[in-house]
Formats: sequence, C-alpha cells, structure tokens
Amino acid sequence: MGSAPGHFSDRLAESILRRRSVVCVGLDPMLERLPPELLERWRGRVPELGDEAAVAGCFSEFCRGIIEAVADAAACVKPQAAFFEQYGAPGWSALAEVVRCAHDHDLPVILDVKRGDIASTGVAYARAAFGGAPGFTAPVGGLDADAVTVSPYLGDDSLEPFVAATAEGRGVFVLTRTSNPGAATLQEQETGGRALYLHVAELVARLGAASTGRYGYSDVGAVAGATAPASLR
Amino acid sequence: MGSAPGHFSDRLAESILRRRSVVCVGLDPMLERLPPELLERWRGRVPELGDEAAVAGCFSEFCRGIIEAVADAAACVKPQAAFFEQYGAPGWSALAEVVRCAHDHDLPVILDVKRGDIASTGVAYARAAFGGAPGFTAPVGGLDADAVTVSPYLGDDSLEPFVAATAEGRGVFVLTRTSNPGAATLQEQETGGRALYLHVAELVARLGAASTGRYGYSDVGAVAGATAPASLR
Repeated sequence: MGSAPGHFSDRLAESILRRRSVVCVGLDPMLERLPPELLERWRGRVPELGDEAAVAGCFSEFCRGIIEAVADAAACVKPQAAFFEQYGAPGWSALAEVVRCAHDHDLPVILDVKRGDIASTGVAYARAAFGGAPGFTAPVGGLDADAVTVSPYLGDDSLEPFVAATAEGRGVFVLTRTSNPGAATLQEQETGGRALYLHVAELVARLGAASTGRYGYSDVGAVAGATAPASLR
Repeated sequence: MGSAPGHFSDRLAESILRRRSVVCVGLDPMLERLPPELLERWRGRVPELGDEAAVAGCFSEFCRGIIEAVADAAACVKPQAAFFEQYGAPGWSALAEVVRCAHDHDLPVILDVKRGDIASTGVAYARAAFGGAPGFTAPVGGLDADAVTVSPYLGDDSLEPFVAATAEGRGVFVLTRTSNPGAATLQEQETGGRALYLHVAELVARLGAASTGRYGYSDVGAVAGATAPASLR
C-alpha cells in the first residue's frame, strides 16, 4: 500500500489544532448547481473537449476554488467519488486533481467512496484509494487519499485491507449508523439484544484499537449520521 | 437514467438460450497473472504511456481477448471495477472499452461495483454505471453496464435509484449472502428469528416484484455465494 507520514488521526488532529476548526468541507459537485459564469466558460469548451471532459474540467476548477477558499478555515475535505465517476475517465482525473489540490494546501482528504469487497478485490479498492497497485516499473500512486469511507456488510475480512493501510498512515471510516430513513432496514434491526449498528460500532472499536495516534484517536472511525442524535450516544 | 432495450432479465435469458450456456465470465485482471508475452509488449510502452496507462492498456487488451474467446460460450461477462480503478483514469477508460467490447459481441455486462449510497449520491452511482448524468449539451453515457452489484447496508432507499433503473432496461444484484468467512459478522446475525441475509433476500424479492420480464425473471437479483450451499435454500 502507498504510505503517508505518521498516523492519519494525527494529521487530522494537527490540522484541527492548527486551524482551530473541526469543519470538514464536502465536495459533491452537481452540474446544475455550479456558478453560471463557470458553467458558461466550460460550456464553450464542449466542441473541443466533449461533454464528459468539459463537465469534469468544470468540477475540478470549482472544487479547487472551494479548497483555496476554505484552506485556512477547514480541517479537511471530503470529496464524494460518485459525482466524479458519472463523468468517466475525465471525472476520475478531476477527482485526482482535487485530491492533489487539497494536499497542496496541506488539507487531509477523506475520500467518500463507501467501498467494500472481499479478498483481492478489497485490496484493489484500498490500492485505488491509497496507491500501491503493481505497475511495470513501480507501484502506481492511486488517488492518494488520506482516508476512505467503507461499507461493512461483507464483514470483518472485507474491512481488513483498509485497516491494514492504517499502518501506512491511512485512515478508514466504517459506515455504522447512517443519516437516511433506510437506516431502519438493516442497521436498526435488533440482534443479540441490540441494534445491528452497535455491533458494527463495536467492530470499529476492535479494528481500530491497535492503531491509535499520539492525540489518542484511532485511525479507524465510524460514520454516524447526526440526524439521529439519540443513536449517537 | 440512460436506457437499454427491454428488460435486463430478458436480455440475459435470451443470451442464455441462444448460447445454451449459463456461464458468466468474470473479468478481474491482475497484472502479475497476465500472459508473459502480453506483459512484455506493454512493458515496452511504459516510456511513452507511463505505468498507469500501460497497465490499463494491457488490461483492456487482455479482457477484450477473453471476451472474443468466450463470446459464443458465455451468457454474460462480469468485470470487477476495483481492478481497473487501481489504475486511475486510464483504468476507467480500459473498463469502458471492455464494456463496449462485450456489447459489440452482444454479451450483457454485469458490472461488479458493490456501490450503495444515499439520495443524490446513490443516483450518481447509478448514472456512473448506466449513464444519464447531465452534460452541457446532452446526458453523458456512463459505463453503459447492463446491470450492477450493490450493497444493502444503507437500506431500502439507497437501493431505490438502481431499482428505478430497471424501468430503463437495467438490472441490479443486491449483496445478500456473500461467499467469504466475514459473512458471519453481519449477514448471519439473527434478527426477528432469522439471519439478516434472509431479510435482505425478502427485500430483494419485494423490490424486484414490479420488474419481471417475459421469461419470468426479475430485473432485481440477489448475490448469494455458492460456498455456503445450505444457505442458498
């Protein structure tokens, strides 16, 4: 796996302390919501670039502008991969540019990808996010995110490649109790006397116990939506 | 959402009948396992293309070769997105080429992506797979897969954008009881007197009831690993 310096949780804690901010800025670009003057400029480039690459270029410029604007006020950024993936390879390039721009501003990047798969496929997803897939001459760099979100449905072994990456300075946030109404479908089902998401929370604590930085936080965290504050306790 | 002709389940059933085959060929390329002569040729192109694009080109050529070889004997193909994503934008382009090649051979494509997210993000993942994201001049095509795999942890509303795509001729397979040991972590937890995966199976049946093709199969299916044959009953 590609490595990053120190613990992810320490890099995040230091960013929080340095900037006196706990704000994480989400980067979820939607074409129809971008500023008209930006849209106008990139619309003009469709004949040259095609639709996919023009939208991707527009997303990249918009998100990099946001990063520059918030670099002093935000502790980290969280790009949402889905919005970029809609625009194919150019979208993926735009996402990579956004990650690089955040790093240029010394902002940790939590890549919201909600991946999760078994065995070698799980390893491949971790490498896509963190780098380290074999190349002909050297391992390739991947997106070089600092941390990712992952989905736990496939169980503890599916989380293992991401947890292993904590030894290389990466972080992982496991979906635990999400903010949507559908959280009731599985997450709130009672099993063994408690909601399923509490079992996931326990798993998160167990998986993260061995990887704690000097600020006392683990490199393995839980995603818990604040729409259900009672469940956060 | 981008549309495909008829029901996904009918296109798959017709491919099965026409080819007298129920074989689905997985396309999970790993650099270290590809034929030496192919590796040698693409290794020579690293100076010109860089490592990522050389591996991606190698994957594309290998998978297209497999598709040509199995086109008469296989009912469908299932590319695994993770292996391509490791190689960034060139990897994504290679995946798109593989999907196009399968379609050139009239083979339905089940894209193994195991996505799942809420609200607009879920819609974006569906559009990445099936097309239909807004462009400046027209919706873009996405990967144009015939069906995708999705993860159910976020609940019924997270599956909705994929289920909605069945009206546009697409299919969806929901992770239900997977083949790995970690299936015990959540999927086999007992809730309401039965294993959690049986609740997912019931959800799959409910979500798919409204979208059944003329061969009697739904466009919404379940992923059930054959490593636990007793659980398949």
